[in-house]
Amino acid sequence: MEIKSSLVLESGESNFILLVMIKNKFFLGLVLACTMTASSFAHDVITRYRSVVNVPDIAGYVTLKCDFHIHTVFSDGKVWPTVRSEEAWREGLDAIAITEHIEYQPHKTDMIKNHNRSYELASGTGDDLNLMVVHGSEITRDMPPGHLNAIFLTNSTSLETPKWQDAVTAAHDQGAFVFWNHPGWDRQLSNGVVAWYSEHTELVNQGKLNGIEVVNARDYYPEAHRWAIEKKLTMFSNSDIHEPIGHDYHTRQGDHRPLTLVFAKERSQAAIKEALFARRTVVYSANRLIGDEQFLRPIFEKSIKFDRLSVTVKGKKAVLVQISNSSDIDYELDLANAPESCDAPQKMVLLGGKTVLLELKCGAKAKNSVVAGALKYRVTNLLIGPDEALVATLPIQVNVTLAAE
Amino acid sequence: MEIKSSLVLESGESNFILLVMIKNKFFLGLVLACTMTASSFAHDVITRYRSVVNVPDIAGYVTLKCDFHIHTVFSDGKVWPTVRSEEAWREGLDAIAITEHIEYQPHKTDMIKNHNRSYELASGTGDDLNLMVVHGSEITRDMPPGHLNAIFLTNSTSLETPKWQDAVTAAHDQGAFVFWNHPGWDRQLSNGVVAWYSEHTELVNQGKLNGIEVVNARDYYPEAHRWAIEKKLTMFSNSDIHEPIGHDYHTRQGDHRPLTLVFAKERSQAAIKEALFARRTVVYSANRLIGDEQFLRPIFEKSIKFDRLSVTVKGKKAVLVQISNSSDIDYELDLANAPESCDAPQKMVLLGGKTVLLELKCGAKAKNSVVAGALKYRVTNLLIGPDEALVATLPIQVNVTLAAE
Amino acid sequence: MEIKSSLVLESGESNFILLVMIKNKFFLGLVLACTMTASSFAHDVITRYRSVVNVPDIAGYVTLKCDFHIHTVFSDGKVWPTVRSEEAWREGLDAIAITEHIEYQPHKTDMIKNHNRSYELASGTGDDLNLMVVHGSEITRDMPPGHLNAIFLTNSTSLETPKWQDAVTAAHDQGAFVFWNHPGWDRQLSNGVVAWYSEHTELVNQGKLNGIEVVNARDYYPEAHRWAIEKKLTMFSNSDIHEPIGHDYHTRQGDHRPLTLVFAKERSQAAIKEALFARRTVVYSANRLIGDEQFLRPIFEKSIKFDRLSVTVKGKKAVLVQISNSSDIDYELDLANAPESCDAPQKMVLLGGKTVLLELKCGAKAKNSVVAGALKYRVTNLLIGPDEALVATLPIQVNVTLAAE
Amino acid sequence: MEIKSSLVLESGESNFILLVMIKNKFFLGLVLACTMTASSFAHDVITRYRSVVNVPDIAGYVTLKCDFHIHTVFSDGKVWPTVRSEEAWREGLDAIAITEHIEYQPHKTDMIKNHNRSYELASGTGDDLNLMVVHGSEITRDMPPGHLNAIFLTNSTSLETPKWQDAVTAAHDQGAFVFWNHPGWDRQLSNGVVAWYSEHTELVNQGKLNGIEVVNARDYYPEAHRWAIEKKLTMFSNSDIHEPIGHDYHTRQGDHRPLTLVFAKERSQAAIKEALFARRTVVYSANRLIGDEQFLRPIFEKSIKFDRLSVTVKGKKAVLVQISNSSDIDYELDLANAPESCDAPQKMVLLGGKTVLLELKCGAKAKNSVVAGALKYRVTNLLIGPDEALVATLPIQVNVTLAAE
Repeated sequence: MEIKSSLVLESGESNFILLVMIKNKFFLGLVLACTMTASSFAHDVITRYRSVVNVPDIAGYVTLKCDFHIHTVFSDGKVWPTVRSEEAWREGLDAIAITEHIEYQPHKTDMIKNHNRSYELASGTGDDLNLMVVHGSEITRDMPPGHLNAIFLTNSTSLETPKWQDAVTAAHDQGAFVFWNHPGWDRQLSNGVVAWYSEHTELVNQGKLNGIEVVNARDYYPEAHRWAIEKKLTMFSNSDIHEPIGHDYHTRQGDHRPLTLVFAKERSQAAIKEALFARRTVVYSANRLIGDEQFLRPIFEKSIKFDRLSVTVKGKKAVLVQISNSSDIDYELDLANAPESCDAPQKMVLLGGKTVLLELKCGAKAKNSVVAGALKYRVTNLLIGPDEALVATLPIQVNVTLAAE
Repeated sequence: MEIKSSLVLESGESNFILLVMIKNKFFLGLVLACTMTASSFAHDVITRYRSVVNVPDIAGYVTLKCDFHIHTVFSDGKVWPTVRSEEAWREGLDAIAITEHIEYQPHKTDMIKNHNRSYELASGTGDDLNLMVVHGSEITRDMPPGHLNAIFLTNSTSLETPKWQDAVTAAHDQGAFVFWNHPGWDRQLSNGVVAWYSEHTELVNQGKLNGIEVVNARDYYPEAHRWAIEKKLTMFSNSDIHEPIGHDYHTRQGDHRPLTLVFAKERSQAAIKEALFARRTVVYSANRLIGDEQFLRPIFEKSIKFDRLSVTVKGKKAVLVQISNSSDIDYELDLANAPESCDAPQKMVLLGGKTVLLELKCGAKAKNSVVAGALKYRVTNLLIGPDEALVATLPIQVNVTLAAE
Repeated sequence: MEIKSSLVLESGESNFILLVMIKNKFFLGLVLACTMTASSFAHDVITRYRSVVNVPDIAGYVTLKCDFHIHTVFSDGKVWPTVRSEEAWREGLDAIAITEHIEYQPHKTDMIKNHNRSYELASGTGDDLNLMVVHGSEITRDMPPGHLNAIFLTNSTSLETPKWQDAVTAAHDQGAFVFWNHPGWDRQLSNGVVAWYSEHTELVNQGKLNGIEVVNARDYYPEAHRWAIEKKLTMFSNSDIHEPIGHDYHTRQGDHRPLTLVFAKERSQAAIKEALFARRTVVYSANRLIGDEQFLRPIFEKSIKFDRLSVTVKGKKAVLVQISNSSDIDYELDLANAPESCDAPQKMVLLGGKTVLLELKCGAKAKNSVVAGALKYRVTNLLIGPDEALVATLPIQVNVTLAAE
Repeated sequence: MEIKSSLVLESGESNFILLVMIKNKFFLGLVLACTMTASSFAHDVITRYRSVVNVPDIAGYVTLKCDFHIHTVFSDGKVWPTVRSEEAWREGLDAIAITEHIEYQPHKTDMIKNHNRSYELASGTGDDLNLMVVHGSEITRDMPPGHLNAIFLTNSTSLETPKWQDAVTAAHDQGAFVFWNHPGWDRQLSNGVVAWYSEHTELVNQGKLNGIEVVNARDYYPEAHRWAIEKKLTMFSNSDIHEPIGHDYHTRQGDHRPLTLVFAKERSQAAIKEALFARRTVVYSANRLIGDEQFLRPIFEKSIKFDRLSVTVKGKKAVLVQISNSSDIDYELDLANAPESCDAPQKMVLLGGKTVLLELKCGAKAKNSVVAGALKYRVTNLLIGPDEALVATLPIQVNVTLAAE
């Protein structure tokens, strides 16, 4: 019997009565005296629902939450393709790409090879759930060029070809977007070092390599981050998941899979493709955002809200400004500048979904003054470069008054 | 790339340093000044571990936690067989049976049929993890006889045969234990009613039907419970899982899959088989135990501990007895009898893993007395029959003293 | 030493380094080699933050979350008054009333009596945290009239007077709002029954009794609910908290104190007072809302969002409509009406903060049709009367197409 | 009305029925048709229970969980003394000391001074709950000597005296145990440095200073740790709590207050006093244990269990050894030594209450061998000195077999 997982509590009168029994057997007699029949416990635990990933949209774009590197039993993964759509729907994603290995087929003893089949099955479930499933494949070679994902394919079969150059060209000819997977994978290092090869340069020059994974699973590659900036490649953060998602993520609250945030003109596959070629992505890995300042700054600014924009500090009494953060990201702040003769916290964490207090105090040497733009924090988990945090100026005007006390 | 899920943090000095960076980017510069190289974030979230199912052993037996009804992609399930062993290990199970449908093969377009293959793959992982994997199959027919699981098979292939009687006999000839799955499944009801057929009687008489699912997934079948008692069938509580376990269970803390508790002479497949034929099982579904009083009573008694066994109640002052429960089950108690002229709580819940307070008060009419065995509670979530809760006598002697106050 | 609880991580370089040590002692040597000084672990756990209570505003009003019945050590409570403001701020409340017993002062051996002092202390902290603290007192008498809270007082001292009538008049003369506390309290029942006395009638007629607790702590009083409707009294849901709030609430996720939702023209004490006299409140207790349909209907409608408002059901294939609920309330739905020949779930729970699926199927007898307004659910946890749930019509147009497939 | 917080569900038939209504309003009609009366919702959330702190006993001693530094409204704390006993009981503590400031009485406007009163009130509740409450006071002076706790007092009044020397002597004369509080408190540093004064030397020499806080609240003082070792002072880890405990701890799962583990001959105040003078304590702060190797080693060893003590590694195939940890502490392991030519994880975390996998692999150069005692790990969160972790030898014999495969 396959029990369809569902929030629908199928129930007639009889199920009802036993719902009561679950909680309290004593009650049963009382009820049965009135109703007489009862055949099964009702399903009273709701297990199927979609959560929200709270990262704000930015001006002109919707912020789509995507994962473009996913495996199933059709290559070396461990779940049926429909599971990938269900998992992603539950987690609040907008789009996934199914990217089976072309060359690596460890289940070939048990499965009938079909490079397109996994996408077909996953996209059927995706359609039911209003989740976008992108058709992809992973060209899986030794270094160079290593593993390359081609997404927005029309037919994966033509990628099975002896020379990797032909496979990339086949993908390119289908209009695919191609990116380099896990460039820092330890099994493909060059003398222990993450290396960029001339083959990669050539692919970039030909327009056949368009992006790079800056994060794969729980690994961050600073070199890939640097290359993405220098060589104008689109940054990705993907799960490369093989097991059921719950085996690798979600075992603790807040532990989400790595996501590629895509700033798209609308919620459609065409808009995602356009955004990827236009390099409008941000890496969202653990509690970090990594990407261009033009995206990180508005995400931060749209996430937080102050209970007032002008604050009067009188004498030595501390004043508490309330800062609310509507996103899921805990912004980690480190003081870069405070108004003269005033104290602000050296460190603060603006907890996701919560309001925290910013305590301001101005000391003995403070003068009557009105200061705006002097309170600055580095947001240490928003990286605009491998070594560079976003610096945010808090929009609070501080009025210092030397009140007698 | 397949990232092996592992608790092992592979790390040299360089990973170390970036662990710091995860928390605090500012710190990075400081550290790098000293160490210079750094290539990736360390994996600092531990996702692979086994939990404990706390149900005590009882005299003479180990209490094994088992699930004897499980599907994978090799019939209509959605995960690769190895996943089933990994899931069960993580959840603290001792044994599972892999029970693919013989007749129902919806993935046949994509998979090469092999009725034994699923067991082979799952038991490989089981061996690595010290989890027992039992070889089973599901004979999947219309009613009668409905769906039957045969476990402890040696070869599933011989169960593929036109007549269900032949399939059951083939299993029986292999020494298999056969039980009736989800007898209350709504698609196999007889005019809306759960029905026992003459075919079932015949199988029982021939010794070819040995058990019955009293619980399947989240459904409890009181009729099956009654039949198990009357016809001396072994009771089962199985998940019949098709999806990754996390899609149907564990979305809330404490939400475990249904388990068949087996009281075995040792932790081995042979001992499980012996215990099943000897009818030494208990159903553990949600927060309920269902089974014979000879098993439920010692489980309850071995779970709870009192901070004292004799309590003196003086005058009107309430006395608090502390009751600790080392099991995972929240025992739900309903007062059946209190010592004369004394008040005890009408209801109590002995929370799993916690200590709660039993407040005793003896009123104006109480006499100086010493009373033992008078404090009785029905444990409403321990069912020894479809309508009958276990009644437990608390081992507390109450000494009533009419102290002046 | 009093450690001020604070999110501010006070830290120089040295604390920094030891933050690392917390996680990983091995690292310490490495770092110390570079930095040399280190004196204490940094505080790396954030404990002080405000959560949000997600209940939407309704047209013309802000929805304020309030608790108008609270005790401290200044009567029979167990915490200092400032704690009440801190607790309420953390929980996301907008306003609290401090309501010490006038007549019941069990701590008088240890405390110097001052009926206004508790309010003074709590409102100091309230001002710092931008939480409104209302000045109240509890007139504490036998039945009739039982316990009455007077809020928006100017001076509590004048309420200490032998006759309860004089106390109520003193409150009324200060412009106070007076409501009846826990009318169903078991120690004040009349022959085991909740009773309305002629004294209450008189107070209502004089305009001196303006509201009633429909919920006190975890108790709901259907009679009080009925009286509130019949006698046009304002409904309240208050905690009547004596212990630290964490002893009675929050021991499980989602377990909030009872709240009186006030629909106010602005966020001010004056606006709250106006709203109370105008009877614009709703009871929010556990997962239930209780109140007038004019408030419950827009709260429900503003909480939920559909992924589409028109759905086409073709042949027998089920269609999944996604329903998102941005409030904290899990709306419990029970089917009242489905479009002809179509199936909709008998029960659904629209989980707070989540999206769930509404599965629609239209059967063999369905005709080509366009149906709007036919899908109706009782929202069984939104009570517009003691026995009456809100009935909601889902704004989905169902287009049935008997397409061949 | 004071609602006694209790797990006891007071309920008659009528409460019963409305319990059902909470879950399901539809059901109400059905039930009421049979039963007719119903007055209030039952209390169905259990909030009062005691948790367990899982740290094993060691040979010859019970491991008592204690906090010897606690404030209430009787000095500068924020809760009534009875709350302190209730909090500690719920958290699984065995003993607390109430230690009000003698000299610092900020609530004196509102409270009647009585240095013994706080202990009296707290110990009353302690007696009801079988929690030991120790009579203490905090001698609160500038540095030197700073703040000193005297515990096991008989009368705190005699400690109110102008000279701090006289206060210490008064405590000493009552047989009290005296320890130095938060020696690294930033407001009492000497030129920014934690300093030991000649006054402290003199007190130690006179036997009047017996212990030192190595941890206060969330602060660890390495200097105090060093002094405790050098000067043979008993180590303490105390909360110094002023607010309700839930404001500073427990806002995340597993976030416990700092505890002083006392290895006592029995569970009594006399045994605790004996153990303190005999220096049998360990600091338990966050996820760290700090103390003498003679205590840390058996705690670690009694916490963990292996699924086998001898393991055979054949060829290159990895073998998984299962390690279970029955304590609450996540032991953080760092490889110190592996058997020759074999690989063991560089890092492991033995999660509290869980089982994890130790993967062993022996490489090409390994020879047939039997090796015991070669697998060693530093347990980096068990500190036997400020810079020194416990080194543990895992009791696993590794049999290496160069099997052909």
